[in-house]
Amino acid sequence: MSDKIAVLVAGSWGTALASVLASNQLDVALWTRTEEQAKEINERHTNERYLPGVELSPRIRATSVMEEAVSGSSAVIIVAPSSAMRAVSKQLKRCWNERMLVVHATKGFELESLKRMSTVISEELGCDEGRVVVLSGPSHAEEVVRRCPTTVVVASSDEQAAAAAQDLFMNAYFRVYTNRDMVGVELAGALKNIIALGAGMSDGLGFGDNAKAALLTRGLAEISRIGIELGANPLTFAGLAGIGDLVVTATSQHSRNWRAGSLLGQGKKVDEVLESMGMVVEGIRTTKAAYAISEKYGVQMPIADQLYHVLFKDRAPRSAVEALMGRDPKTEMEMMPLQTWKQWHNT
Amino acid sequence: MSDKIAVLVAGSWGTALASVLASNQLDVALWTRTEEQAKEINERHTNERYLPGVELSPRIRATSVMEEAVSGSSAVIIVAPSSAMRAVSKQLKRCWNERMLVVHATKGFELESLKRMSTVISEELGCDEGRVVVLSGPSHAEEVVRRCPTTVVVASSDEQAAAAAQDLFMNAYFRVYTNRDMVGVELAGALKNIIALGAGMSDGLGFGDNAKAALLTRGLAEISRIGIELGANPLTFAGLAGIGDLVVTATSQHSRNWRAGSLLGQGKKVDEVLESMGMVVEGIRTTKAAYAISEKYGVQMPIADQLYHVLFKDRAPRSAVEALMGRDPKTEMEMMPLQTWKQWHNT
Repeated sequence: MSDKIAVLVAGSWGTALASVLASNQLDVALWTRTEEQAKEINERHTNERYLPGVELSPRIRATSVMEEAVSGSSAVIIVAPSSAMRAVSKQLKRCWNERMLVVHATKGFELESLKRMSTVISEELGCDEGRVVVLSGPSHAEEVVRRCPTTVVVASSDEQAAAAAQDLFMNAYFRVYTNRDMVGVELAGALKNIIALGAGMSDGLGFGDNAKAALLTRGLAEISRIGIELGANPLTFAGLAGIGDLVVTATSQHSRNWRAGSLLGQGKKVDEVLESMGMVVEGIRTTKAAYAISEKYGVQMPIADQLYHVLFKDRAPRSAVEALMGRDPKTEMEMMPLQTWKQWHNT
Repeated sequence: MSDKIAVLVAGSWGTALASVLASNQLDVALWTRTEEQAKEINERHTNERYLPGVELSPRIRATSVMEEAVSGSSAVIIVAPSSAMRAVSKQLKRCWNERMLVVHATKGFELESLKRMSTVISEELGCDEGRVVVLSGPSHAEEVVRRCPTTVVVASSDEQAAAAAQDLFMNAYFRVYTNRDMVGVELAGALKNIIALGAGMSDGLGFGDNAKAALLTRGLAEISRIGIELGANPLTFAGLAGIGDLVVTATSQHSRNWRAGSLLGQGKKVDEVLESMGMVVEGIRTTKAAYAISEKYGVQMPIADQLYHVLFKDRAPRSAVEALMGRDPKTEMEMMPLQTWKQWHNT
C-alpha cells in the first residue's frame, strides 16, 4: 500500500480527517476547489476559512487538480457536500483505479432521488456499493484537529474494506470502530438532523430537559423503524453514528439544526429563520426527505411528520407537541422482524 | 377500582408522581416520614424541603401512618430510596392486599446483594416479581410538577399490570409507554449513573463534546452487554430508561453524578469530592456494584472498570481515558445471542 492518501475537498471535516492521517505518518494530498486555498495550505499550513487558528501538518500537500491528488494514492477519502457528491464522484471516476480504498464521510441524502451517499458514489464509479466505506460519528472537526479524544465508526458490507479504513485512521486520540451495517450508519447520520431540529424547537418553546430527552429517544426510535424497513440493524442507531452523533448535535447550541429549531419554537417563521441564519439548515431539507420516505414505505414517523407540518404547512410548534403527547398509548418496543435479526445476528 | 392511590414516601419524585395522579382526578394518599411533613402538605399544600415553591393539589392528602395511606387503595406507588426499599416493603407487607397494583419508581440496586428493586419488593411481599411494575425515564421532578411535557416507560413481565400503570399515570403532559422488559428498564436506570460520572470526568479533564458523546455511546454499549447477560433486551437501553434518562443525567450540570465526575477530572480525590458535595453520589456506589457484576458474569465493562480504578485504586483520570482509547480495535456491534432475540422478538 502506498503511503499517499487523497482527501477530496478541503472543508473543515476533510481538513480534520487529513490531519488525522498526517498524524499517522501518511502523506496526504488534499484537493481544494481553488488554487488560492491550495497555496494557503502549502505555504502557510493553514486553512483559515474552515479551521481558523489551526496549524496544519506539512505532510498535508494541497492541489486544486483532482487527478494530481488521486494519482498514486492507496485510498481516497471523499468529504464533499451531499449536493456535490454526484459531480465529485463523476470527476473521480476519470482518475481512480479499482485497487484504491474508497471512504466517504458525508452525511445526507441526494435530495431528488433520496439515495444514500454510498449509492451515489458507487453508481458513478461503476463499482459495487460494498466497495465504499462510510465514516461517521460524533466528531466536531475543531476538536479532532486539537487531538481531543474522539471515536467514530467505519461501516461497509465488505468487512476487509472496513478493517482497512479502521487501520488507516486509528490512533491514540482517534478511536475507530467497525460495523457491517452501512445502510444504518448512513441513515442515522442523515436523519439525526431532523431530531436535532425538533430538540431545538422544544427548547425554544421552553419545555425543559424531560421533553428534549423524550424527543431524542422517541426520535431515535422512529429513525430506527425506518432503518429496519430499509434493511438496517436497529442497534446501529444506538451506536456512534446514531445516538452518539445525535447527542452532540442536539445538545450543542452551536448546532445549526438546533438553533433553527429553537428559533421556530420561539415563533419565527421558516423563511425568517433561514434568512437570519444565512445558510443551509440540513435538518429542514432532511425533514422533507424523511416525510417522503415515511410515505413511500408506510412507516410511522410521528415526530418527522409534525416537524414537516410546522416547516411546510404552517402548523404551530406548540400544537405539534400537543399532538405528539396526545397520541394513543403505545408500547416502547418495536418488534424486530425475524429477517432483520437473522441478517445481523445469526452469526 | 377505587379512586384512592397510595404513594410511599413524599420525597421530590414521590410528590411529583402524586401530582400527576391528582391531575388525573385521583385521590392520593401520600405517606410521609414525619408528622410535621404530613401537616405541612395537608394544611399549606406545600412540600418545601423537596419541591420548593410548588403548590400541591388538595387532592393529595398526607399521613405519617403507612396503613392509613395504603388501606382501601387500588394501587401502591413506591418511591423509597434504594437503601430503604427492603424496610419499606417489609412494612407494606403488613397492610397491602393482593388486588393492589404495585408500581415502583426507584433507581439502583440493593448494595449488599446486587438485587434489583423489583426483586427486593417481591421477596418482601411474598409475590411473583411479575406483579411489580417499574416506572422509569427522563423525568426531573421539578419539571413534572410544572406540567412540562414528559415521557416515561412502565415495565413488567405482566402486560396487564403494565397497561394498568400506563392507564393510571398517562395524561396530556405525562406520556407513558409500556415495555415487557422489566430487567432492562431497572438495570438501565441503575447503571446509567456510572456513565454520567464518566461524562462528568471527561468534561472535568476538558476533553470536549466528541469524548463525552463517545463515553455516553460506548457506556450504553457496555451496560447493554451486561443487560443481555442478565436477560434484558438490548433495545431497552436505547429507550427512555436508557439513553433518554442518560441524556438528561449526563448533560445537566445539576446532576450530582456529573458534578462528582467533573471534580474528579479536575484532579480532586474521591474523599474530597464526597466531602465537598455533602451527599450521596449514587454513581460512585453503583460503580462498585457494576464492577462486582462484571467480574461475576465475566462481561467486559471497560468504562466501569476504569472508573472503578480511578475511584478506588487511585488511578489518574487521564490515564484511564488513555487506556480506553488505546484498547485493541473493535467492532461496534455486539452479537445478540439467539436466545435473547427469541425471548424478545419472536412474537
